[in-house]
Parts: sequence; C-alpha cells; structure tokens
Amino acid sequence: MIIQLENQISDQLKKSIIEKVHELKYKTTEVNTQKGNYIIGIGKKDFDIRKIGHLEGIADIHIVSDDYKLVSNKWKVKPTVIDLGDGVIIGEGHFAMMAGPCSIEGEEQIEKTIEHLKANNIRIMRGGVYKPRSSPYSFRGMGIDGLKTWYKAAREAGIKIITEVMQVSQIEEMYDYIDIYQVGARNTQNFNLLDELGRVDKAVLIKRGISGTIDELLYSAEYVFSAGNESLMLCERGIRTYERASRNTMDINAISILKEKTHLPVIADPSHGIGIRDHVEPVALASIMAGADGVIYETHEKPDEAFSDGQQTLNFAESARLIERMRKTYDLRESF
Amino acid sequence: MIIQLENQISDQLKKSIIEKVHELKYKTTEVNTQKGNYIIGIGKKDFDIRKIGHLEGIADIHIVSDDYKLVSNKWKVKPTVIDLGDGVIIGEGHFAMMAGPCSIEGEEQIEKTIEHLKANNIRIMRGGVYKPRSSPYSFRGMGIDGLKTWYKAAREAGIKIITEVMQVSQIEEMYDYIDIYQVGARNTQNFNLLDELGRVDKAVLIKRGISGTIDELLYSAEYVFSAGNESLMLCERGIRTYERASRNTMDINAISILKEKTHLPVIADPSHGIGIRDHVEPVALASIMAGADGVIYETHEKPDEAFSDGQQTLNFAESARLIERMRKTYDLRESF
Amino acid sequence: MIIQLENQISDQLKKSIIEKVHELKYKTTEVNTQKGNYIIGIGKKDFDIRKIGHLEGIADIHIVSDDYKLVSNKWKVKPTVIDLGDGVIIGEGHFAMMAGPCSIEGEEQIEKTIEHLKANNIRIMRGGVYKPRSSPYSFRGMGIDGLKTWYKAAREAGIKIITEVMQVSQIEEMYDYIDIYQVGARNTQNFNLLDELGRVDKAVLIKRGISGTIDELLYSAEYVFSAGNESLMLCERGIRTYERASRNTMDINAISILKEKTHLPVIADPSHGIGIRDHVEPVALASIMAGADGVIYETHEKPDEAFSDGQQTLNFAESARLIERMRKTYDLRESF
Amino acid sequence: MIIQLENQISDQLKKSIIEKVHELKYKTTEVNTQKGNYIIGIGKKDFDIRKIGHLEGIADIHIVSDDYKLVSNKWKVKPTVIDLGDGVIIGEGHFAMMAGPCSIEGEEQIEKTIEHLKANNIRIMRGGVYKPRSSPYSFRGMGIDGLKTWYKAAREAGIKIITEVMQVSQIEEMYDYIDIYQVGARNTQNFNLLDELGRVDKAVLIKRGISGTIDELLYSAEYVFSAGNESLMLCERGIRTYERASRNTMDINAISILKEKTHLPVIADPSHGIGIRDHVEPVALASIMAGADGVIYETHEKPDEAFSDGQQTLNFAESARLIERMRKTYDLRESF
Repeated sequence: MIIQLENQISDQLKKSIIEKVHELKYKTTEVNTQKGNYIIGIGKKDFDIRKIGHLEGIADIHIVSDDYKLVSNKWKVKPTVIDLGDGVIIGEGHFAMMAGPCSIEGEEQIEKTIEHLKANNIRIMRGGVYKPRSSPYSFRGMGIDGLKTWYKAAREAGIKIITEVMQVSQIEEMYDYIDIYQVGARNTQNFNLLDELGRVDKAVLIKRGISGTIDELLYSAEYVFSAGNESLMLCERGIRTYERASRNTMDINAISILKEKTHLPVIADPSHGIGIRDHVEPVALASIMAGADGVIYETHEKPDEAFSDGQQTLNFAESARLIERMRKTYDLRESF
Repeated sequence: MIIQLENQISDQLKKSIIEKVHELKYKTTEVNTQKGNYIIGIGKKDFDIRKIGHLEGIADIHIVSDDYKLVSNKWKVKPTVIDLGDGVIIGEGHFAMMAGPCSIEGEEQIEKTIEHLKANNIRIMRGGVYKPRSSPYSFRGMGIDGLKTWYKAAREAGIKIITEVMQVSQIEEMYDYIDIYQVGARNTQNFNLLDELGRVDKAVLIKRGISGTIDELLYSAEYVFSAGNESLMLCERGIRTYERASRNTMDINAISILKEKTHLPVIADPSHGIGIRDHVEPVALASIMAGADGVIYETHEKPDEAFSDGQQTLNFAESARLIERMRKTYDLRESF
Repeated sequence: MIIQLENQISDQLKKSIIEKVHELKYKTTEVNTQKGNYIIGIGKKDFDIRKIGHLEGIADIHIVSDDYKLVSNKWKVKPTVIDLGDGVIIGEGHFAMMAGPCSIEGEEQIEKTIEHLKANNIRIMRGGVYKPRSSPYSFRGMGIDGLKTWYKAAREAGIKIITEVMQVSQIEEMYDYIDIYQVGARNTQNFNLLDELGRVDKAVLIKRGISGTIDELLYSAEYVFSAGNESLMLCERGIRTYERASRNTMDINAISILKEKTHLPVIADPSHGIGIRDHVEPVALASIMAGADGVIYETHEKPDEAFSDGQQTLNFAESARLIERMRKTYDLRESF
Repeated sequence: MIIQLENQISDQLKKSIIEKVHELKYKTTEVNTQKGNYIIGIGKKDFDIRKIGHLEGIADIHIVSDDYKLVSNKWKVKPTVIDLGDGVIIGEGHFAMMAGPCSIEGEEQIEKTIEHLKANNIRIMRGGVYKPRSSPYSFRGMGIDGLKTWYKAAREAGIKIITEVMQVSQIEEMYDYIDIYQVGARNTQNFNLLDELGRVDKAVLIKRGISGTIDELLYSAEYVFSAGNESLMLCERGIRTYERASRNTMDINAISILKEKTHLPVIADPSHGIGIRDHVEPVALASIMAGADGVIYETHEKPDEAFSDGQQTLNFAESARLIERMRKTYDLRESF
C-alpha cells in the first residue's frame, strides 16, 4: 500500500495516519522524496481501502500487489520523465542517446568525442573515470581529475555527463561535475550506495546486475526511490548465461517486461549486451523495437587503441550510422 | 576444407581426389546433397590449397576454419533461399511469417485459423500434431489423422504446413502432408533424427536446443546438410537461464551472430522466446531489427481455450496487428 | 492419485473402478508394469479417499501431490532395488560402481578393462558403442559389432554391461547384449525413446538433461515407469552453467533432493560432472556423502590415447585408488 | 612474475630492481603485506628468469602464468594458515567450523547459541548485524549495537566472531569487535571494499559472487592480498542457475578446483548452497570430501522463529549431529 500524503500535512496528522495503518497490522516506512511524501505499508495483500481512505491528510491510496512499491507501474499514472536541464529530457517521447568511450583517457579523446556527438546532435556523453576491473593490476581510470577535465569541455559544448560511481565517498566528490550517476552491474546490490544515492538531487541510472533478476533490479530502484530520489532510470546490459559466442546475453525480454512493470525509463546498453562491435547496431535497433526509452553505447575515434572494451566500441562512422538508424527505428515504433 | 566436385564426375576421378586429400593427412567425408557433391576434409587448419586445387573434377575448394563446414558462411557466396512452391519463398528478401496454434485441435480450429491467415496474406501455417510434453499424462497431440485433416484444408487454401517431427518413423508417415519438418528444441541433438532428415527432399527448420549453444545449433544443421538436405532453416526460440519473469530468455544476440556465421535463413520464435502474450509483439519486432529472415508465432481464435500454450498465444486481432507491424519493421530494415 | 489394483482383477471390475474415478472428475491412465497394475488419476489435489477406497479390486490408494506420480517417494514405502542377476544388485544397501571407457575401441581395450575391473571386484562395465557427437565428422562409435565383441568378453568374466541407446530401433538390436540401457543427456526428453524403453524388461538408467531440471528428470522417469518398466535409475551428470573452469557444474544438491523425492536409485557421474581427471575423485566421494546409490565413471588403460573424453578419464591406478576410497566413504555414510 | 624482496631491503635497491623489471617491458605493482614485500610484474608470459634472478635484494622469483598472482598456488609452497589466536586456527590440518544464526537478534539468542557452540566445542560463531536485503523494507540487522552485545558474550566464552561488512565505513567501526570480516556474495566485486580490507590486520573471508566465476573470486582475493592482507579465506556458497528446486546450486566442483589453484583456505557454506534445512547435512559432508578446509552454516534454537533464512537453518539437535558427522568425515578424508 502506498499512501500519498498531502503536501502541507502537519506532523500530528501524519502521526495519526501512521497509527491507523499500524492498527491494520501493516508495518510502515515513511518516504520523503524531492517530489512528494509517502507512507509505504507492508502487510497482507487483501485490504479494505475504505478503512483509512477517508482520513484527513491523505491525497491518495494505492494498493500495489508487487513487492516493490514506489517504482511499480501500478500506482503512478504517468511515466517518469527526467529533465537534465538545457532541453535534455529522458523518458516518454524523448528518446535518449548516450554515447562515448568506455574509459575517459585524456583531453584530446574527450574533444574528439564531443565533436562527434555535436555533429550528430547527441546531448549525453558516457565515459568511465572510476573503472571496476576484475584484476587489481588493470587500468582503473583517470579518477576525479579526469572527470574535471571532461566536465569543462562538456559544459562548454552543452553536453551532459553520465559516469559510474563506485562508492559512497565518490558521490559528493563527483557531484559538481556530473549529470547522471551510473550504478554499475557489479554494484546493483550495493545497498549502501543505493541508499546514499537516494539522498542526492541528481539523476541515477541503475544497471542490471551481472546475473540479476528483473525483480532485483526493481528492488534496487526501490532503495533509491524510497530514500528520496525519484530521478531514476534502469538499464538492461545483458546477463551472464552459458552461451560463449557473445560477452553477455542481451535480455531483450527484460526491456519489454520492465516497461510493463515500472514507470521508470528503461535504457538499453547493446555494447555490453553483446560485446562485439559488428553486432552492436542490430542489438541497439532491436532494443528500441522492444520498447527502450534510450540507448547507451560505446564509441571511440580509434576503437583498437581504446584503453578498455575496444572490441565492442564503434568508430565514429559506425556510430553516426547507428544514430541515424536509431532515430528512424524510434520513429517507426512511435508511429504504431 | 570443402571440395565442391563437378556435377558429372566419374567414380574413379572422385576416388583419386579423395586419395590425394588423404595424402595431405585429412580425413574425408563424402557429401551428396540434392544440389551438389562435396568432399569435406577435416584436418590441420593451415593448408596450401595449391596442392590439390588444380586436380581434374574439382569445381572449387574452400578453406573453412569453423568446425562446422557446409553451413558456414565462409564458403557459400549467396544466402540459402528455400522455395516451397506456389510462390512461397523463404530467405534473402523474402520475409517469412509462420503462424498458427500450438496444437492442432480439430477441423473448426483449422478452418478459423486458415481464414485468419488468408485475410492477412500469410502463406505458412504452424501447428503441432505430435507434441513433446514433459509429463506423460498431458495431451500429446492429434497425430497423423489430425495432420491429414489439416493438410486437406491447407492445400485448398494454398497454405503451406510446418509441423514438428519427433522421431524417425514419423518422417515417412508425415511426408505427403507437410512442407517443412520442424525439429523441436528437445530434439536439436537427436542425431539419428537429423541424419534421416538429411535424406529427405523437404525443407527442415531446426530449433535451437533448450540450452543449446549457437555452435551446437550449427553443428546440428551440419548433420542434416552433410546427410544430403540443403533446404534448411535455423530458429532462435529462447534459452533457459536463471531469469523467471519470462518463460525463456530470447537470445536476440544469437540472431545477429547466426546471420554472420551461416548462409541459412534464421527464423525467430517470440512466442516461446518470452512466453507471455502481451510481450510477443515487441520481441517479434526486435527480432526483425536484429536480422531475422522470418518469424514463427502462435495464434488461436480463443487463446484461453487453447489445448496448450494459451498464455503465449495471440488472438486474431493481436495477430493481425503484429503482421502489419512486422511488415513495416522489415521494410525499414531493408531500407538500411 | 495412484490406485494399486489387485493382481487378479477382472476387466469388468477394473472398468467399474475407472468409471467411479471419472465420476470424481479425474482423468485416468492405466499402467501395467512388469510388477503391478495401477490406475493413475490426474485431477484436483484435495480429494476424499473414502469415496473409492472401499471398492472391490483396489489393493491400495495413494494421494501423490507431486505432478509425477509413480516415481514419487510419496506412495512407495521401500526404495526400488534392481537385480541384474548373478548377485549384481543396485539400490538400498548395495553400492553400485560402474566403470569403463568413454568409447569401446576394440578387443584389447575391452580385455584390459575387464581385467582391471575384476582385480578390483567391480561388476558393471560402462562404455559407448553408439556415441552422440556434436559434429557429424567425429567418431560415432563401433556400433553393434563392437557391442557383440564386448558382450562375449564381459559374459565370460561375469561382468554386466551398461551402454547408451540413442534411438528406438537400437533397443531391440541391443537387447541380447546389454544389462542396462543408458539414456544420454541429449535424449532425456526423447519421449518416444522413453516410451519404448518402458516396454522392455531390462534396466534403464536415465541421465539428467544437459540443462534439465530435477523435475524434468523425474517426469522422464515417469514416462518409462508408466509405460511399464519399473527397473529404473536416475543419474546426475552435471548441468550447463556459466562457469567455464569445469566442463559441467556437478549439481550435488540434486543428489540429495532426488533421494528425497523418488524411490529410484540415484547414480552420480563425476567424470562428466567436472570433466577434469584430477578432480574426478573428490567429486565422486562428495557424491557419495550427498547420498548417491552408485557412481559411474570413465577409466582407460591409457587415457591420453582414448578415442574420446581422455581429459576426464582415470588411468587404472587412479581408478583402483578411487574404488578403495569410495568403499570407505560409503561405509562411513552407512554408519551414520 | 612475483619477486619476493628481502625483508630489510633499502629503498634505493628496490628502485633499481624495479627499473630492471621495467627494462624487460613488464609493468610493476609494489605490494607490501603484513608478512612480506613483493613486486608483481605483469607482461609477456615467456621470460628468462636469469635476467634478474641474480640481483641483490631479491629473495626469490616466481613465474606465475595465472592472471592472478599472489593468491596462486604456483608460487607459495605452503598452504595459508590463519591464526585467530587462543588456539583457533584455520587451514591445512585445522578443520574450521563456523556456526550461528543468519541474523543476530538479541541477547538471549546470542547466549543460547554460544551455549550450543560450547557444548559442541565450536570456536567460531557466525551471524549478521548488517544484512544485505533485496528489499529496502526488510529487516536490515541490529547494527553496531548488536555487534557489541554479541562481542561481549563471545569473548567471555572464548568464541571468535565472523560477520559481514557491507561498506568501507563499517570496517573501522567493527574492527574492535570481530575476528573475521565476511565479504558477502553481493560485494565480491565491490573493489573499493576489497582494497580497504587489504589494509586491515584482521582475517577476511570472501564469498563467491552470486554468479561469480572461480577466476573472479581469485581476482577479488588478489585485490585484498595485493593491498596488504594475507589472512584470507574463500567461500563457495552456491551459484545462480536455472534450477529452481534449490535456492542456489552448490558448486562442489569449485571446492576441488580452488584447492588446486590457490593456497588460501576454502570454506563451504551449505546453508546458502542448497537453501533447504533437510539437505544441509549431505551437502556439508559432500563439501568436506571435495576438499573444503571448513564449513560455515546457519543454526538457531528455533529456526521457524528466526528473523531471516529460517528455511535453511538447523536447530541445535540437527547442528550437533552435523558437527559429529563432519568431524568423522574430515577424519576419513585426512586418512586418505
């Protein structure tokens, strides 16, 4: 049960509502986001809404049979739309393209990439400055200094930044230089990180875990939302299966299923989803037909010289072709 | 190595070529299909083609580094096209739609389905008369009598038939009443069945195994091809993973990868690929953008009353909408 | 519901019982095995046994809530014991060891292996004469002639034979020369083969499918049992997962779970379960502690020269050590 | 390549060695653990050790072809032994049993559990005070206050404590009250946490990721070791597969394979590995035969009233029986 409270509710009134809910044997969690105040009630599923629906201070009550609540499609009428400012909008009717290298490597690379994005009218650039690497001996990214360099160039060009945050202490450090915090596939269930991202007023994109279920992804989003941050996106980036012909198995089903289950925007990552340069385009276009609200992918001027993920990175010519085809595919889907 | 022999080659000449190949320490397999005669050589991968390329009787020699040979894209310049007669063609430029119920249930159901297909200009009808069922107590299909009834109605309507063959003894039994033998996901590695289907002059569609790899699917095709039958299609129908929100995990990657690796047409089965009625359409359209040469899906006048698979079966209105959208999606892809 | 009929029941009496069951809205299947006659009723799960329990001709009635019936532990008080004759017994208190090469290769190999088995008091020899191979160009086994040679040597030595049957037509062909039909992992859901093996009076061992569930294995056993053959064993041989450090992932859990769910003997195959020679022993001993009634494994005089599976095959010294340790491990378990 | 430096090496000498290694085109990482100083060289695999082996200051050089280095069995002659003090030792010849509830719930529960452990001569108690939960609305543990209460009771009883640490800030907070930091399955690739645990002088147990590979687990251990902490254990706790009859699939193979690949102790967690109370014992005993150096499992006075994981938790009578059988099984294995 989600109880939406009236905006100007007094503490006393709120307290009396919570008491009533406790009388119904529901446990409660108070949620105050940047956009609204809610009481989440967890308890038995069959429940007579009339027992509390009339109480003063309640704007609306929703029965949500899913085990996740605030991110469920069952209570929120409209899809979530995320406004990054300067006309960059994600969600419902605004197809989001995010492109850039796996790792930020230096000033020249940043400039070349921004030039490519501008030429193709892409407004969001991806790139890693903190890199989660299986081996401690691999390149772990340029860190905060790389981010500052990137930020300067991107701001001048009107480009927004999405980059991965790996731990709580980086949230504040990065805050002034990014537009979207990305939670990587190895941190999807790093609950402390999710809790803290719920307290920030910047957008968050959560990647599905390496072998996370769709439900687990929704629960992880519930962590961020219930801690206060509604500016949330989810990202399908392929799952781990027995098949070895591709790096991961892009779960195209998940895109369609997530669109049914949640009001949050769903982004597809075909680069990680298949992991092979020549196949990124078909998987990207397929993701759009499956319902994705956006695509995030890797591009680099010279993929073979990239510090990481070169095998799945498009060069700029391939990227430009993909962008054009994505736009046409999205238009077709929207025409249905 | 694949040696294409000249069509009118004498036995003696063929024998002398094989001897030469043996001298190079290659093992040989003779393959005589309905379309050509080949010698497959298995041995070390680096090989000087000039040592036998000049021999009389040899039309062409191809080095194929894949472990499967005849189904590989590395030797055959043109994609395989399958002509079922009466203008029904599958492959390269001919988008194939195959629709119908999970199980054939009776005369009325057959007629209703055919009517729906004709109204939407679909030329191939799917349906099961022998059903592989996990439990011995489930409905196992109407058998050969059901097939005969179906055949009569379909022929009159100019509709082709694809249906599953489960064992060797059914091949002959079914021969006069079908156009495409379907090998089900539980039989992808039923090698005796594949061998025998290689000796038949009717088209064969092989479904990927329930947790089969892409390579295993290609090897299974190699069985049929090397036993003599080149009229072959492959079908991606979802694989078994840990995810429980969908019946299977549609491996969209596999479609794109198969199109690169083989000259055979690749068909997508979104009904089994996701297993949930409301999501069949997005997965079908996604499969087309990923490169599929056709789509096979389940439709029934009253899905909720279907003998099997009702939860993933479209009603005729949903089916008609899907057909229209598939055509538009295919046209967009072909325009790229 | 399983209704055990009295042995000498008249057709008329049986018919009247079936009618009564139909009145309760249950579907029925008649099962006549080599050991008993049953009526399987499939219907709603809550059922008042008193409504038919008093009827003449009924020896016993069992409510079985599992979806498989005859192989369930819920109705049969005693574990199934399989007597191969000559004192070779499998099940409850008789630990079964089955050893031999992956492929039967010839007379000398057969003799060497038999000598090794006799020296270690092993009574069942494994080996393949029909080999399911992913590629059509691989060695497919010596066939029926190899089996006859093997049979002659084994009989003289008092050794029983277990070997894989791949298709229906081989059942009769092999009948005189084998003691246990093995259904391979690629044929676990070859339902026609299972049906026919249900009509034979020789023991059957069913391997779990390459990515088969525990329930699917039990259903496959139900096919054989309900078609008439109660001399059945199940075999855990590892499942397909994402892990690449081993050939398969031995599902040790499955052994313990199967022992709870079914009265059939459960055999472990550590050779395929891990696929690496040096690790076969620990996995074999682990399987015994998990509850296995027997172990089947690969051994060869010179594993590096074996026609197939050499990398997971023990030499005779390793095999002898394993046998000794398996006996001690089994004794410890039985002492608990 | 691992270069073990002499203990009293001067900075200048170390610098000159590193320069020599750079000349060989190897990248270097300096590692100073609580027990030794190393230089890790990453580069081409074939390498003539004589080129630097004679240099002053070098105690030993090891070629390690694995991609993980310090945790590999290829350079360290003796298995790692972890001494927790007061005679509590883990590794080689010291079988470690760790038992206790999923969650620490309060004083009474702690005392009852300690009493049970003492009665059975178990010296290490497990329990969670910070609980990673999929849903933000579930019980998340008693936190640091629960840990302090637990610590007080355990110290008096001579019992050591292992508990999960979820984020960097908890490391210091917990330091005075624990003996082993446990890294949970959702944090196996939380690289910042691993880095920081490498700087602490307390033992660390790393659980395998929910669908982590064996290699990834070894890499995660390499993070901790290369950051300075050699007191490390690994834990197999089951992986995520398609099988639904058990909570996870205990990867018994991994235990045997890890024992071959690394010198670190390997602990088995049968409670999570199968997730069903009645099957914990067989899986625990199997793990020992597969080579485990210890077993960690869940026990509670009244499992059905446990705050979490009750379905896989043993009561004290089951726990006592398991302990006795584990000791006998371990003795048998050691006798081989």
